[in-house]
Amino acid sequence: MRPLRVAIVGATGIAGQQFVACLQEHPWFQLTALAASERSAGRSYEQALTDASGARRWWCEEEPSAAVLALPVQEATRLDLYTVDLVFSAVESEAARALESGYARTTPVISTASAFRNEPDVPLVVPGVNFDHLPLIQAQRRRRGWKGFIVPTPNCTATGLAVTLKPLHDRFGVRRVFMTSMQGISGAGRSPGVMALDIIDNIIPFIPGEEEKVERETKKVLGQAGEGGVEPASFAVSCTCTRAPVLEGHTEAVFVSLDRPASLTEVGEAFEAFGAELASQGLPSAPKHMIVVHRDPFRPQPRLDRDTEGGMATSVGRLREDRALENGIKYVLVSHNTKMGAAKGCVLLAEHLVKAGYIG
Amino acid sequence: MRPLRVAIVGATGIAGQQFVACLQEHPWFQLTALAASERSAGRSYEQALTDASGARRWWCEEEPSAAVLALPVQEATRLDLYTVDLVFSAVESEAARALESGYARTTPVISTASAFRNEPDVPLVVPGVNFDHLPLIQAQRRRRGWKGFIVPTPNCTATGLAVTLKPLHDRFGVRRVFMTSMQGISGAGRSPGVMALDIIDNIIPFIPGEEEKVERETKKVLGQAGEGGVEPASFAVSCTCTRAPVLEGHTEAVFVSLDRPASLTEVGEAFEAFGAELASQGLPSAPKHMIVVHRDPFRPQPRLDRDTEGGMATSVGRLREDRALENGIKYVLVSHNTKMGAAKGCVLLAEHLVKAGYIG
Amino acid sequence: MRPLRVAIVGATGIAGQQFVACLQEHPWFQLTALAASERSAGRSYEQALTDASGARRWWCEEEPSAAVLALPVQEATRLDLYTVDLVFSAVESEAARALESGYARTTPVISTASAFRNEPDVPLVVPGVNFDHLPLIQAQRRRRGWKGFIVPTPNCTATGLAVTLKPLHDRFGVRRVFMTSMQGISGAGRSPGVMALDIIDNIIPFIPGEEEKVERETKKVLGQAGEGGVEPASFAVSCTCTRAPVLEGHTEAVFVSLDRPASLTEVGEAFEAFGAELASQGLPSAPKHMIVVHRDPFRPQPRLDRDTEGGMATSVGRLREDRALENGIKYVLVSHNTKMGAAKGCVLLAEHLVKAGYIG
Amino acid sequence: MRPLRVAIVGATGIAGQQFVACLQEHPWFQLTALAASERSAGRSYEQALTDASGARRWWCEEEPSAAVLALPVQEATRLDLYTVDLVFSAVESEAARALESGYARTTPVISTASAFRNEPDVPLVVPGVNFDHLPLIQAQRRRRGWKGFIVPTPNCTATGLAVTLKPLHDRFGVRRVFMTSMQGISGAGRSPGVMALDIIDNIIPFIPGEEEKVERETKKVLGQAGEGGVEPASFAVSCTCTRAPVLEGHTEAVFVSLDRPASLTEVGEAFEAFGAELASQGLPSAPKHMIVVHRDPFRPQPRLDRDTEGGMATSVGRLREDRALENGIKYVLVSHNTKMGAAKGCVLLAEHLVKAGYIG
Repeated sequence: MRPLRVAIVGATGIAGQQFVACLQEHPWFQLTALAASERSAGRSYEQALTDASGARRWWCEEEPSAAVLALPVQEATRLDLYTVDLVFSAVESEAARALESGYARTTPVISTASAFRNEPDVPLVVPGVNFDHLPLIQAQRRRRGWKGFIVPTPNCTATGLAVTLKPLHDRFGVRRVFMTSMQGISGAGRSPGVMALDIIDNIIPFIPGEEEKVERETKKVLGQAGEGGVEPASFAVSCTCTRAPVLEGHTEAVFVSLDRPASLTEVGEAFEAFGAELASQGLPSAPKHMIVVHRDPFRPQPRLDRDTEGGMATSVGRLREDRALENGIKYVLVSHNTKMGAAKGCVLLAEHLVKAGYIG
Repeated sequence: MRPLRVAIVGATGIAGQQFVACLQEHPWFQLTALAASERSAGRSYEQALTDASGARRWWCEEEPSAAVLALPVQEATRLDLYTVDLVFSAVESEAARALESGYARTTPVISTASAFRNEPDVPLVVPGVNFDHLPLIQAQRRRRGWKGFIVPTPNCTATGLAVTLKPLHDRFGVRRVFMTSMQGISGAGRSPGVMALDIIDNIIPFIPGEEEKVERETKKVLGQAGEGGVEPASFAVSCTCTRAPVLEGHTEAVFVSLDRPASLTEVGEAFEAFGAELASQGLPSAPKHMIVVHRDPFRPQPRLDRDTEGGMATSVGRLREDRALENGIKYVLVSHNTKMGAAKGCVLLAEHLVKAGYIG
Repeated sequence: MRPLRVAIVGATGIAGQQFVACLQEHPWFQLTALAASERSAGRSYEQALTDASGARRWWCEEEPSAAVLALPVQEATRLDLYTVDLVFSAVESEAARALESGYARTTPVISTASAFRNEPDVPLVVPGVNFDHLPLIQAQRRRRGWKGFIVPTPNCTATGLAVTLKPLHDRFGVRRVFMTSMQGISGAGRSPGVMALDIIDNIIPFIPGEEEKVERETKKVLGQAGEGGVEPASFAVSCTCTRAPVLEGHTEAVFVSLDRPASLTEVGEAFEAFGAELASQGLPSAPKHMIVVHRDPFRPQPRLDRDTEGGMATSVGRLREDRALENGIKYVLVSHNTKMGAAKGCVLLAEHLVKAGYIG
Repeated sequence: MRPLRVAIVGATGIAGQQFVACLQEHPWFQLTALAASERSAGRSYEQALTDASGARRWWCEEEPSAAVLALPVQEATRLDLYTVDLVFSAVESEAARALESGYARTTPVISTASAFRNEPDVPLVVPGVNFDHLPLIQAQRRRRGWKGFIVPTPNCTATGLAVTLKPLHDRFGVRRVFMTSMQGISGAGRSPGVMALDIIDNIIPFIPGEEEKVERETKKVLGQAGEGGVEPASFAVSCTCTRAPVLEGHTEAVFVSLDRPASLTEVGEAFEAFGAELASQGLPSAPKHMIVVHRDPFRPQPRLDRDTEGGMATSVGRLREDRALENGIKYVLVSHNTKMGAAKGCVLLAEHLVKAGYIG
């Protein structure tokens, strides 16, 4: 298989950098183009990462390779698509609307942006959770007259929730969900991000727009895809999303009412059995286990567990009965917001799209 | 009124130090005795606070006065009660059982320890919330043949929850409560407390025994006191208690199902009207408002709001409808765990007991 | 004395907010005008503090009063000086050059900006350290034809160093200074400030321009003022300035070679005796002690000591001999970077200028 | 080569755990025995790591293997040495004196404890810096009548300093050193370590005994070994050691006066050339570069650079002239305190001792 040539748009922000980290040595994809706003365009990636004081603004653990640093940064509105098989988009959502629909005329676009998540003909996909929504791509192409397409992934907080609710919903039915998140600061995305003066020794109890996204997107991901779009799952979701002094990794305390009674053993088994199919596909970024269940009651912890299976597994612990809910259970999850919940999740999605014949 | 002479038992720990901070310049109480374990006994308070490396282990913002530093530390099992009108107990719960029942033979004891919280003849009191449980003291004295008595305050996490549920329960009826706490580290109490290596850049999703305490104690505080004890409130409470990298102040995300529909305006009014009676009693440590309601969606934050009204008010914000619950509302609260939630709450309780004629 | 009417320019940034906190209830000064950049102009101060998401961007512990929140924000380039007796400037240094010289034509300007710090006819003043440089104001007015004048205070890191070196230099002579700072994040000033993603669990070993400022400004503050300007002190200063995960307060580890031998007792006495004259002037913002000396070797700590005497005292501890230097001593200091080191230091300077007849 | 059987004493503390992490999959060493205090003895390692609340107290990134968790923990005073070729000691220094001299009668001991560091016949060794001190082992054995021997590594803060001073001393001569450390909290070693309540939003300016150790041990490591012991280097070292809210990695700001003038280019070359010999020995734990020099002025940072070359390289940046010192230079270094500065440094030392024929 010849490597597919990929572009990253929004390459200088945190999410874009995470794409670079995932793609610079990817066995299937060759990173051949970087794009960003006008401010960065025309400079090398190395120059574009360097701020006025001479510091390199780079936030990933993996250092960018010399080859990537030397790539020229194109202006996003003028990205040359002739030599690109696939676009990864990490742009801000306002810009995403025009940019992504422009790219999709000719080229597949996989995006972390929220711009198209709520369109009826756009599947909103968490890898390993709802690949069965992907056939909507055909309807999207037909309806919009595109040669390419757009598939976004959901909000990073919805991702961890959807991963854990999927096996519950499949086996026992989910009726109601109450969730409180304690989100890492890298989830605040692009510059300037969370100020240290705001978050050290503190919790910020509000993240604008986050709760609505989590509630809506979780239900779309777990819904039924049909001809005309996705019928959202019928369960109720209620969230409080907070920011905590944690560098990376979102922690979520979840309370779930199920349709049918389920013992904790059955729930634990449902979590652990989930994802075997994904693991068997041979995709380079897929975790061996979608969900890792901890028996130690002090786990999961974001610092210890965010990087489990390369940041692609969701760690679950503190599984208990919830007697205040009908058929109630409760648990805590940790999900890596910039890996499974953003760039690396998109890359895994792209791998599946290649395997399934949608790309390439 | 002559000042009442008070003792602090467990004076060297964080909770004990908070008692010292509240009592060293109190207008009604005179701090005349300090007690701790055998290790500290026979030394001055200053010596007892000094560790092997010469550092003073003191964690309150208010510095201890020279007079207090000079007080001798007595051994808790041999505390001289002849010159003491009232004992504040901040000892660990295992030790509390024997110590507090010994003191109570002759002397009133107000305690942050959990040892007696679940006894039927022991009122569990949050100041301003359930002073109507205090007549149980008579039954306690009769039954146990004590001249004194024991009144504990609940777990610090239950305190903030009970303060906010009380006006809801009185006006609209509370049916179900789901709560996730993000607790400050000073709540971990006595040495060695939370290790920095465990909590920096992290969330710890488990605090042993905490959830059971919050669930049980919240229902006792909001229950009905009768002759034979307290009938716990009948609503269901389900919690997940976590530790966050916050120095002080507990943040709680609360989801409540009410018995009757209530608009957010009505709920806000119920919160703000609550506590007027307490404020009118002229107690030195009472807050002017039991609950302060924030309209700014980014509040309450523990660093900014924990010290509201001297750490005695509970700050509430993010009041929203919860459509996943019948008559559902949700909100976030911040409560100061070592002030209203521990020592200073006990001192306020003592002030009320004096005013109401139970002490002195 | 009628209150002097004062304006704050750069009122929306952290330093500007600290001016608001100091001035909104000041006994001598009446805050009558606020100015900022074009973006904020024409809005109330409350509106100008509110960001796109509806959050109030306010970083001081003291809340702004209703009266201040209602003040209109003027554009800095069009500040109406007819009703202002004194301008406090907290603008960024590039903007300060034109703005401050404009104001100074008619009105005294006290500034935290660095724009004029190195001009020969501009005194660079730390309150209580070098008021004897103030007569330079006459030369400045003559030379520039101004009715007003400009007096800046030095960089916040230089302030703590100059305060502690002054009594050493006066008594024993300072020959060489080596200093490493661990600076709080509020010192990074205006938006966006230090990102949490950069500083949690980290030390940043470089603050652009800081070391040069500390070295040059410390020597100017401790220099000799004459007709033609200030002859900098002749000692050598070498610094490494780092940023630490501390909200406020700069910690500095200082190694000093003195001209003459001095015992630790003599040095401690020099520190403690320093500032008595300032304290005797009756200035509202003056600390009772310029320097507070700790014997506990674990002090000073920025969290515990930054607010000593309202943030206006410099805390010194760990005083030791340094055998690697001739007549060497070493110590650690903590200085509040946004109080003594910025806004409140300027207000204290203004109080002295009023008392000394330069203003009003 | 048959694998050498090794024991870890003090296996339950942080330093001991780091030994486990380094040794459980080591190509040359087989971890066959674990020992700790009486409290842990007789339990499996897994049980010994579990605290009263059921939490596993484990602080390394690498998880312990199932095989290690199943190993029985022996009591340190009764460690069975018949089946052990080498002992790694991570015990507290008071206990180390008796334990290590007991083991050394029959078996080589490599230790992070300070007990024997100052003995004249005991080489104090930083791998790659002063292997030429190892022949002292012969004198030690003769004098004490031991079949084994003791070689300690220095304090973790001295290690980073010694690594960077060594190439300077060899090429230009070191005359005077001023150093301020900002040390990570894992350096506080064994339980209970640094309390979160003490260090969040704070700097602690004192670490008992640390400065004396750094000053003395740096000079011994860089001294001349002869028949009768080590003649310490003659340069002067002066330190201020502080604790910062950093999980791991010690940052040190260093000011050095050299004997001879050296350009920054020469100094940089000396740093980068250092360690080539060590790298050529084929030791599994050796870094390819002892010192990594950063040109980006914002580096080194402990979070980004502590793990360079597996935590075994010392990162240096901010190399500048120091005009306040004769032939002065200054720089900042980051060294991993529990890897190169403790357990993994000992393992590297052991690898060299094997290669050089001292063990096995």
